[in-house]
Amino acid sequence: MSWVLIGVAGAAGAVARLLVGAWIDGRPGGRAFPWGTFAVNIAGSLLLGLLTGLVVGRGWLAPEVKVVLGAGFLGAFTTFSTWLLDLHEALRRGDHRAAFVNAALSTGLGLLAAWLGLALGWGR
Amino acid sequence: MSWVLIGVAGAAGAVARLLVGAWIDGRPGGRAFPWGTFAVNIAGSLLLGLLTGLVVGRGWLAPEVKVVLGAGFLGAFTTFSTWLLDLHEALRRGDHRAAFVNAALSTGLGLLAAWLGLALGWGR
Repeated sequence: MSWVLIGVAGAAGAVARLLVGAWIDGRPGGRAFPWGTFAVNIAGSLLLGLLTGLVVGRGWLAPEVKVVLGAGFLGAFTTFSTWLLDLHEALRRGDHRAAFVNAALSTGLGLLAAWLGLALGWGR
Repeated sequence: MSWVLIGVAGAAGAVARLLVGAWIDGRPGGRAFPWGTFAVNIAGSLLLGLLTGLVVGRGWLAPEVKVVLGAGFLGAFTTFSTWLLDLHEALRRGDHRAAFVNAALSTGLGLLAAWLGLALGWGR
């Protein structure tokens, strides 16, 4: 397992998260809800499911690919800390509804995305 | 804002996540629950709260530091996709209790950690 490859993948994942997040937050109405973080987290869960299915289920890709692309790129592309700070910020300003919707939607759709990715990757 | 610095921070965050995760999972009983991902996510939420407090609250650090260390390093150090796949895996094997405990504990303690970090950083 190459730490250099994991580092390069992590760098690409972090930069991609910020670029995608900034693009989404810049759309009309994009700032009303933290859509940027939401979108990368759901997309990343789908892609990690797909990758896991292709590696573990079908054996089409080597386990090292899962470490570099999954733990390196997608691990850095998705983020937990910013999501949690977004939830805290909504609670702090008294918007409990936004915090609950964000928590429930991110976890629920994230699970659905992971399941869909795994099903597609595994091919069953 | 330097994309090179963000990339370097993202690389360091991803590698640090894997090193800390592997160290924790290697401890006795470490594999019974995904403690590695849990630990980096809670620690990252605490540190992002602390950093946000120091930058936004006290103004001790420049906003660029928050982008590089917060979005770059801590964004890559914490991960949403692996956490979601862990939840999915627990549900798939029928261990609903582990999935619920992981979801509730990660979100609840993460919020507490973010609040504590913000309180410490902001100094109020």
